[in-house]
Amino acid sequence: VVTRDVPRGAIVQGNPARIAGYVDTLQSLVERSSANVSGNSSVRELRARGARILQLPKVVDLRGSLSFAEIGKHLPFEPKRFFLVYDVPSREVRGEHAHLELHELLVCIRGSLSVMVDDGNVKDEVQLTSPAEALLVPPQLWRVHYKYSPDAIMLSLCSHVYDANDYIRDYEEFLSVVRR
Amino acid sequence: VVTRDVPRGAIVQGNPARIAGYVDTLQSLVERSSANVSGNSSVRELRARGARILQLPKVVDLRGSLSFAEIGKHLPFEPKRFFLVYDVPSREVRGEHAHLELHELLVCIRGSLSVMVDDGNVKDEVQLTSPAEALLVPPQLWRVHYKYSPDAIMLSLCSHVYDANDYIRDYEEFLSVVRR
Repeated sequence: VVTRDVPRGAIVQGNPARIAGYVDTLQSLVERSSANVSGNSSVRELRARGARILQLPKVVDLRGSLSFAEIGKHLPFEPKRFFLVYDVPSREVRGEHAHLELHELLVCIRGSLSVMVDDGNVKDEVQLTSPAEALLVPPQLWRVHYKYSPDAIMLSLCSHVYDANDYIRDYEEFLSVVRR
Repeated sequence: VVTRDVPRGAIVQGNPARIAGYVDTLQSLVERSSANVSGNSSVRELRARGARILQLPKVVDLRGSLSFAEIGKHLPFEPKRFFLVYDVPSREVRGEHAHLELHELLVCIRGSLSVMVDDGNVKDEVQLTSPAEALLVPPQLWRVHYKYSPDAIMLSLCSHVYDANDYIRDYEEFLSVVRR
């Protein structure tokens, strides 16, 4: 990060002119549109129990693209933690585990990656390719991440802070939990 | 998004072998490390009232990079909304406004962008260049975004869902609010 002091009253550098013809900012446009997201967001249930693909609202105009999600519309929980995965050098498998309680929302912000979700009976493989789509992984689903493209960046929003006791890292133990 | 059914018992495609010598996944490594983040995270107060740069913990190893934040450590609020800005074609100014109540955490996930924060008395300009740093913008700070690099991707986590009444879009009105 680079910071610098800005003298009081200074003009902001970098050309502060707005793009002609746009009174509002990109964000204001999208925020207005968020009052009516039903037309451009959707939910698709996967076969694995509780897993869902969320198409997030996306607004594209001359000023760029923006996708968003909020509680009560696209986000089924209040995130307590987020993490970003990037600079993944290989397409190997990672992220093999399940959670007892934690819900996770995954967004592939750049590039692509695949996730397999498995409820102990049914598996789905999902390739995430857009910052305007998200995979909701509820608790007690085994998940595997793989096939990260070299430029892939993954955002995870989690319903709980880290708790080692919430993890199931052994697949046989996972099966015994979900079959109880 | 592309999904496909995975036959029960199928081997996951894409080389499911773990990288030799790593028993745990990248995520598990980081999650263990999150129990002890004091050594690799920090907070720097800016001059503008309440604005802060947060250095997020980052773990880099052969399997890639990961940065994270969680409530009670690096995240001072529970996000109710997030949005991603990308494919910004110019370095023009955008995002000129302040909020009455909303706290925002900004992360430049890829590329770089600059943010000016202004409390009505003091301005700071911050260039964000890493997914392991975040800018906390508390309410009643005027902010301007600009100098997006062509590949820039910005993540914003917000303490509130969208509320048009929470916005101050006029700088003179902003000054009158903060000088009350």
